Amino acid sequence: MSVPIVEAKETGRIEAFSDGVFAIAVTLLVLELKVPQLAEEAGNGELWSALLSRWPSYAAYLVSFMTILIVWVNHHRLFTIIQRSDSRFLFINGLLLLVVTTIPFPTALLAEFFEKPSASAACAIYTGMFVLLALAFNAFWRYAYRNHLLARTVTAEQIVAISRSLLFGPLTYFVAFALAFVNVYASFGLCILLAFYWAISGFEPATKRAREG
Amino acid sequence: MSVPIVEAKETGRIEAFSDGVFAIAVTLLVLELKVPQLAEEAGNGELWSALLSRWPSYAAYLVSFMTILIVWVNHHRLFTIIQRSDSRFLFINGLLLLVVTTIPFPTALLAEFFEKPSASAACAIYTGMFVLLALAFNAFWRYAYRNHLLARTVTAEQIVAISRSLLFGPLTYFVAFALAFVNVYASFGLCILLAFYWAISGFEPATKRAREG
Amino acid sequence: MSVPIVEAKETGRIEAFSDGVFAIAVTLLVLELKVPQLAEEAGNGELWSALLSRWPSYAAYLVSFMTILIVWVNHHRLFTIIQRSDSRFLFINGLLLLVVTTIPFPTALLAEFFEKPSASAACAIYTGMFVLLALAFNAFWRYAYRNHLLARTVTAEQIVAISRSLLFGPLTYFVAFALAFVNVYASFGLCILLAFYWAISGFEPATKRAREG
Amino acid sequence: MSVPIVEAKETGRIEAFSDGVFAIAVTLLVLELKVPQLAEEAGNGELWSALLSRWPSYAAYLVSFMTILIVWVNHHRLFTIIQRSDSRFLFINGLLLLVVTTIPFPTALLAEFFEKPSASAACAIYTGMFVLLALAFNAFWRYAYRNHLLARTVTAEQIVAISRSLLFGPLTYFVAFALAFVNVYASFGLCILLAFYWAISGFEPATKRAREG
Repeated sequence: MSVPIVEAKETGRIEAFSDGVFAIAVTLLVLELKVPQLAEEAGNGELWSALLSRWPSYAAYLVSFMTILIVWVNHHRLFTIIQRSDSRFLFINGLLLLVVTTIPFPTALLAEFFEKPSASAACAIYTGMFVLLALAFNAFWRYAYRNHLLARTVTAEQIVAISRSLLFGPLTYFVAFALAFVNVYASFGLCILLAFYWAISGFEPATKRAREG
Repeated sequence: MSVPIVEAKETGRIEAFSDGVFAIAVTLLVLELKVPQLAEEAGNGELWSALLSRWPSYAAYLVSFMTILIVWVNHHRLFTIIQRSDSRFLFINGLLLLVVTTIPFPTALLAEFFEKPSASAACAIYTGMFVLLALAFNAFWRYAYRNHLLARTVTAEQIVAISRSLLFGPLTYFVAFALAFVNVYASFGLCILLAFYWAISGFEPATKRAREG
Repeated sequence: MSVPIVEAKETGRIEAFSDGVFAIAVTLLVLELKVPQLAEEAGNGELWSALLSRWPSYAAYLVSFMTILIVWVNHHRLFTIIQRSDSRFLFINGLLLLVVTTIPFPTALLAEFFEKPSASAACAIYTGMFVLLALAFNAFWRYAYRNHLLARTVTAEQIVAISRSLLFGPLTYFVAFALAFVNVYASFGLCILLAFYWAISGFEPATKRAREG
Repeated sequence: MSVPIVEAKETGRIEAFSDGVFAIAVTLLVLELKVPQLAEEAGNGELWSALLSRWPSYAAYLVSFMTILIVWVNHHRLFTIIQRSDSRFLFINGLLLLVVTTIPFPTALLAEFFEKPSASAACAIYTGMFVLLALAFNAFWRYAYRNHLLARTVTAEQIVAISRSLLFGPLTYFVAFALAFVNVYASFGLCILLAFYWAISGFEPATKRAREG
């Protein structure tokens, strides 16, 4: 059932399909925010406290949203210099999308178990998924530059700069993963910090330098 | 994990990604309309009355749908004059999308608790989300015009007219938010009125004047 | 919060946004197909019969899928001759999309209650939604031709032919709606017939004649 | 309600709509991964074992994801040589999308019942859906080449090569379907093997030959 044709070399439909998957994954996260089940006669106080007690749910929602958004922005950026595609690249991009679409599940696990005795397991799965995400993103980039899918104007220095920058992801998420077995607040706190740090630094105009350099 | 590349300056992929998120958020709202749980032998009368008793659910569905649609139309319109993008703009647009994708949750809260003793808290959260939505939309527009992302043909008068028009949003939703603590019918009623008012006025050909002026 | 700008006159983004909504609405239908809850020790026979007993669920899924697909195809076709847009047209298209996104809810109602004493109410809501859908589609088309949004090459005869063809929808669905109060099998059977009839006839090359005429 | 107009002959909007449906179907699969219900005091050990005991759920998720991704890639590839469209082709493509959007349901069935006495029925439905998927894909391709929708540069040899390659799908899935009644591990194992085989072979640069030949 595999069609023996070379697909078009251009990247338009991969980008469109990937954008769709990113947009849906980020939007499905909201389905994990559950309406509290309260007694009929429960008043405003009970609703507020039921909602507040679910703060891990909102925190996990925000971190997962920001993380997917950051990956989308970086995916988008890399496609400004990736100008060709081939069969295996479609497959590697598919693996990256697989990790992205799976994120709502560990997000729901973390939200459910963060304040329970099984927090450590839930947190290990959550941060472990981010390790996988960062590794898949690195594999995606490595395949692109090793197989000559980049625009000719990209220099070796730029490739090195991007590769070095991307290594930071798996390393820091691995630290968060290891922390999950020690202290879940430190582990999840690191995920929050990373989401904020990349949201702010990753969106910095300063990132221009690598290209302009 | 932040890729040191300038993304393309054009706005095509931001619009496509945003359109995807708007389309999904507006469609996911339907998942909050729940099939009533009735006894096996319940007849037509019971089903009709079970459905009718859930009118806050349908009203909240309609208001949220219309509100997201109105924001989409306005987002769409602003992109006819926003012609450049930069890194922080992607981030601010992402925050706007975060509020949009979250709307199904307060919609479900309002539907569940509108006729219960905790209506006030649910209504405060629902209207509070609309305050955030309006503020995010203002921030989005402010960033665009302050950072020279607009087409050169846009005049200072037009910018002032749009800015003034957009201020109306946070102000009126803040009134609805304050009303939530006094009378939930007044608060939610104001949201309904605003959705209708913007649906009708916002879609008026008369809105041409600002540009043609 | 309504931006005082004329949106672009072209129809590209309306089509893209509408396509997104159609694609999501049609895909969300599957979430109404529920996994049966069986006892742990239930065997193959029990699973087959539990699944077979839910045939109204599959029939409703198929009819709703085909109906949304047919509306999408026709929407798509009309946009080959609709070449301009204006503010109110965005709004009317939004109302059409509102009916489309709501369809999973009456589909779930019909699936749940079709073989119960409240079948008549569920069937009236299901067919009533199709009446609304057909009316919204007629309104959409009427607005387009009355407000000069069509290509100049479209003749008056073609407009009359399309208008006449579209009237068939509300009329036949109204019959199905009326039948819901008499016999739900006749009512739902008519919906099945219509879906098949339009699927086959609507996809006929013979439909070319109206344009070629 | 069928609009008597010839739709545009080009395939752009069919591809965009299909891409949307594929992207959503693949992303909705995650909703079938359920958070385990554990006692409040359950520890890490209980969470790990509850998650591990659900391995059929993850395996079914992965196989369905890969299978939809492979169909998307092949759909994408065929559209590099399909350059025209007609009314019935829209319909046949719609039937293919119907099978694709339905996949989350048998996936959930398999996940729920794979280790229970009704595994055989669940597995027959899961593999039966893949038989339908492969048949729909063959029908899609047959319609395209028999009705002159292909680019003129496509040779008869290429058509034969593609047709032969596509026949492999229904045959192997039919074997998996038959095995479901004998041994569910063999049946589901074959689905896993096929997903891996097509993922690897289907993404092989060697597939170029058919076109270059």
